[in-house]
Amino acid sequence: MLAVVKEQKTKGVRLKQVPVPKPQKDELLIKVKIVSICGTDVNIYDWTPWAQSHINPPIIVGHEVVGEVVEINGKSKNIKVGDLISSETHIFCGRCYQCKIGNKHICENMQLFGIGRNGGFAQYATVPIKTSWKNDKTIPLEEMSSQEPLGNAVHVIHRVNVKGKTVLVTGLGPTGLCAVAAAKAYGAKKIIALNRGSYRRVLGKKMGADEVYEKLPEKYLNKMDVVLEMSGNEIAIQTAFEAARIKATVIIFGIPKKDISLNFGKYFIDKELTVKGVFGRKIWETWEDVSELLKSKKVDLTKIITHRFKLSEFEKAMEVMKSGECGKILLIP
Amino acid sequence: MLAVVKEQKTKGVRLKQVPVPKPQKDELLIKVKIVSICGTDVNIYDWTPWAQSHINPPIIVGHEVVGEVVEINGKSKNIKVGDLISSETHIFCGRCYQCKIGNKHICENMQLFGIGRNGGFAQYATVPIKTSWKNDKTIPLEEMSSQEPLGNAVHVIHRVNVKGKTVLVTGLGPTGLCAVAAAKAYGAKKIIALNRGSYRRVLGKKMGADEVYEKLPEKYLNKMDVVLEMSGNEIAIQTAFEAARIKATVIIFGIPKKDISLNFGKYFIDKELTVKGVFGRKIWETWEDVSELLKSKKVDLTKIITHRFKLSEFEKAMEVMKSGECGKILLIP
Amino acid sequence: MLAVVKEQKTKGVRLKQVPVPKPQKDELLIKVKIVSICGTDVNIYDWTPWAQSHINPPIIVGHEVVGEVVEINGKSKNIKVGDLISSETHIFCGRCYQCKIGNKHICENMQLFGIGRNGGFAQYATVPIKTSWKNDKTIPLEEMSSQEPLGNAVHVIHRVNVKGKTVLVTGLGPTGLCAVAAAKAYGAKKIIALNRGSYRRVLGKKMGADEVYEKLPEKYLNKMDVVLEMSGNEIAIQTAFEAARIKATVIIFGIPKKDISLNFGKYFIDKELTVKGVFGRKIWETWEDVSELLKSKKVDLTKIITHRFKLSEFEKAMEVMKSGECGKILLIP
Amino acid sequence: MLAVVKEQKTKGVRLKQVPVPKPQKDELLIKVKIVSICGTDVNIYDWTPWAQSHINPPIIVGHEVVGEVVEINGKSKNIKVGDLISSETHIFCGRCYQCKIGNKHICENMQLFGIGRNGGFAQYATVPIKTSWKNDKTIPLEEMSSQEPLGNAVHVIHRVNVKGKTVLVTGLGPTGLCAVAAAKAYGAKKIIALNRGSYRRVLGKKMGADEVYEKLPEKYLNKMDVVLEMSGNEIAIQTAFEAARIKATVIIFGIPKKDISLNFGKYFIDKELTVKGVFGRKIWETWEDVSELLKSKKVDLTKIITHRFKLSEFEKAMEVMKSGECGKILLIP
Repeated sequence: MLAVVKEQKTKGVRLKQVPVPKPQKDELLIKVKIVSICGTDVNIYDWTPWAQSHINPPIIVGHEVVGEVVEINGKSKNIKVGDLISSETHIFCGRCYQCKIGNKHICENMQLFGIGRNGGFAQYATVPIKTSWKNDKTIPLEEMSSQEPLGNAVHVIHRVNVKGKTVLVTGLGPTGLCAVAAAKAYGAKKIIALNRGSYRRVLGKKMGADEVYEKLPEKYLNKMDVVLEMSGNEIAIQTAFEAARIKATVIIFGIPKKDISLNFGKYFIDKELTVKGVFGRKIWETWEDVSELLKSKKVDLTKIITHRFKLSEFEKAMEVMKSGECGKILLIP
Repeated sequence: MLAVVKEQKTKGVRLKQVPVPKPQKDELLIKVKIVSICGTDVNIYDWTPWAQSHINPPIIVGHEVVGEVVEINGKSKNIKVGDLISSETHIFCGRCYQCKIGNKHICENMQLFGIGRNGGFAQYATVPIKTSWKNDKTIPLEEMSSQEPLGNAVHVIHRVNVKGKTVLVTGLGPTGLCAVAAAKAYGAKKIIALNRGSYRRVLGKKMGADEVYEKLPEKYLNKMDVVLEMSGNEIAIQTAFEAARIKATVIIFGIPKKDISLNFGKYFIDKELTVKGVFGRKIWETWEDVSELLKSKKVDLTKIITHRFKLSEFEKAMEVMKSGECGKILLIP
Repeated sequence: MLAVVKEQKTKGVRLKQVPVPKPQKDELLIKVKIVSICGTDVNIYDWTPWAQSHINPPIIVGHEVVGEVVEINGKSKNIKVGDLISSETHIFCGRCYQCKIGNKHICENMQLFGIGRNGGFAQYATVPIKTSWKNDKTIPLEEMSSQEPLGNAVHVIHRVNVKGKTVLVTGLGPTGLCAVAAAKAYGAKKIIALNRGSYRRVLGKKMGADEVYEKLPEKYLNKMDVVLEMSGNEIAIQTAFEAARIKATVIIFGIPKKDISLNFGKYFIDKELTVKGVFGRKIWETWEDVSELLKSKKVDLTKIITHRFKLSEFEKAMEVMKSGECGKILLIP
Repeated sequence: MLAVVKEQKTKGVRLKQVPVPKPQKDELLIKVKIVSICGTDVNIYDWTPWAQSHINPPIIVGHEVVGEVVEINGKSKNIKVGDLISSETHIFCGRCYQCKIGNKHICENMQLFGIGRNGGFAQYATVPIKTSWKNDKTIPLEEMSSQEPLGNAVHVIHRVNVKGKTVLVTGLGPTGLCAVAAAKAYGAKKIIALNRGSYRRVLGKKMGADEVYEKLPEKYLNKMDVVLEMSGNEIAIQTAFEAARIKATVIIFGIPKKDISLNFGKYFIDKELTVKGVFGRKIWETWEDVSELLKSKKVDLTKIITHRFKLSEFEKAMEVMKSGECGKILLIP
């Protein structure tokens, strides 16, 4: 089968023929229908420090996958051959302290699909049964592949109360766009969104932002009840803290490339802020919420799906991805 | 009367004779019984950037004051001449949004006693009735003067759940020492405390720390449920984030002298931390709790009162204060 | 001027001519534009035990009022003659413990507009400045008069998390209908509503309920994440507790006419429920949220405004009100 | 071996010789060292309606057990032959929704040790490995047998914030006594306790109550921040709601014998109360907290252990238990 393989500890990947994998015990074999590109995949392609510390080549990359189950090796209560499953990237152990108290998503012994083990930029993939989500077939196939970023956004919103609040979203990558949509669906009063490039500001409006800007207008300084930092960009992070009002909550989701320098007195203390990091998404509570948002059409992910490529066009897709002039990019194997 | 006056926009203060002040409308005149030295007073003495941006000389310094009411200009429901009152440093407006929703302690139009207006390093002082706390006379007079740092600590503990938790306190200045005592009183499971100097580590043990160290032992990395950062010290802040376990809460109370550089990915996101700033103390909820802790002897502040000086010995007291070889230092006018 | 007066300690009210009132210090005189009928007014009309313990005739009844300011006796920062103000029924003292910690809505010394003092079923009324809400003139006048029930509903939703939850609403009186709308606006996953009469079930659907029933279908027993009991009806209350799933939250808003008998073991303990009472609405946080919901058209109150009468037709309006075949009923003086 | 067996669907139990049981897969065989009597055991003895709906004779009764492991059938990460284990009564499934989100203690498919299956009033007992708690050997053996009521109390305190609060405890049975101790350990400001019989009021004082009464003094009506209803007694429940201040939290732990009639308007709504049921205790979070309280001597359970009997004296022990003139009663097989 065709697969995108990280073969070397250098920049780039290789498209090549590899054998169809065999599902191990308690795994599924799926025929990949769609797999979308995540920012993480760009890191892996570019062989950034993050990638260097997480990836041990050779490995098949890609994790935002939807596929049809063609073989089940083990027992599954609800998944059958022919089902359409999406894969949760975070493969939890189920035994550590965090798993036991209901925080599987931040398991202490996490393994990562398409990062620590072979993933889904391929015609077939193997997925643990325990991290397979059976999709409701009324949801459009294209949306099924992009539930992870919406799940991140929903998990963000579950870490902060947006009901009747003024919300700033900094950064309109796919997850930032989903955060706009989730804040809207869950009752934010007003949503302001920032993004450097205009392409994604247009998408921000489509997803429900009341106002979008390149830079924060001065009138909003110290005025936001809630700030969702989705970019990891240094300037955006400073803006996030500047925009927060006294007693506000700031969510940190975007991962900066380097350390961030922060005036603790001015922000944390003088505003008595609450700042919360967000990692992944709850397994399976968040997936249930995502499914509901998609089924009820409260969120329409197709609005941010802007490009579709064949898997063999991977390099072209990666180029568009890096341009920032895109929403979600789908690959069809 | 004798008073400690910040006269010039340079380092130092001056002890001098000034007239006894007249209470304005809705103010009290108090005869100062004891006034203790706060870290803020060191900033003012040293004319640090913080002081430069907050102080407009000439001003009488000092704010942790207990005094006897000698004159009341206005109406007061419960305060009478002869009462012993302590002063809350943060003079709230009572009209802004934060005041209206019960957050007077972080009022948007705050004025500061002994910083933005004349304070209590003097034989007499005027205090707004609305920021005067009438003391229960069963509490020892010396403790009455040091309720603000204990109030800070109690407010810290009200921002985080310590019940049955493993708590790290970084920095054992007077407020850090009070944080140890408050964490103990409110049911922490185990309290580890860090301080560079050994003098205050001894005090830390006296206030209830189970273990005290100069540096965090490696076995506690990623193990603390709750971290209270009370020092503002750059290295201590890094340690605070290192020590926090996945899903921990970190309290930021100590004000760093400069910006702090932080690995957002490693701390905020990978551990999904909650980080909360803490400012001042609730008016009057915290004061009621402090009063209760002192009356019931659950906290014994006299253990950290290590030095007493006459007001005229201010310079000597400031020297001891800067040495770090002290707990709380009292001045008697 | 014409006014509806509770004159006797018996059933009924009297329409009569009375002098236009004079605003006392810190009060407004308003020309009443619209006043809507509340369930409380029915209690007063019928002289129920509740009314007997709260009303001391003679008194002008009515409290859900919008009027134009014609005279201001005192200072007001933002209200001017000509403004359209709605009145908050709960007149707080501003000095008690609850007022001080941000809970003015449940003040310990509450006075009630149109209940403990003259109200708004009249051509003119006097209203304290401190309980007058200045309306945004882009909101339709008819909606301005019905912000209190929507405010109750919004306050209900602020006492419980509905984000992504399955919500049951028992009782579709005007506040129940508003609760459906508010749960919808704030991100409930699915809203089931119960009402005995079919007229209001139709309105329930219009306000956003996914499903409406006379009785709870068996499949929903022990399945609801959140239950909002808005009826005060004995059977509905039992249903509310039956419908709640393990660990659910139940809101108690409807006031029963008599004591309710409850199986504590089966409900509170075996399901480990959280049950919260709700009183009034936050002053002014809730009003700000209500205003936003109306301005943004997230909630359209005109859908539940079903009848309009002249003030002189009060008796006819009261008859319709009692039939249950209505939504909100407006009176135009 | 000797065992206390519920043989008939009538009042009473029978002491008889039965074979030593064999541990099934994933079970331990323990030699029972101490087993204490719980209120539930009285229900079973008396064949109350609750017992009739939960018990299917014949069954060996008793669940508050500590024993030495003599055989292990299956794998256990930390338990070895010779360890002293206490048994958690609630045998969870580990697969239902509540188990998955960290609420194993309120599992939807719960089985009960000593109630739904053979228990510990015997010389030997079998216990699932998954509900066996390995004791720290520095804790006195007698305290090991009574960790369940302390666990209930700790779980109560984890459902409500007692830090700096005025707490009323209604009912001083063993769990009520533990609730006093836990409220004390976790920073309550003042603890008032009520009990009909004077014997247990004396124990209440020993466990840390500041004041104990037969009836609530009038001055405390509407004054308590937190109320812990531990009795299930009808009058005590009314008192609990009467004592609660506006915005208070009331915990419902005691199971009433019949339905309770309650004025919803007066309590839930006019005071805007939060009322929370409490069931069992968290597995294993609560056990860890209990262990810590015992190891640190913050709670001394031996103060409430008032009687010790041989297992063969079961009937005599039951008599004392019913008299109410006792704390915890231990049986030694």
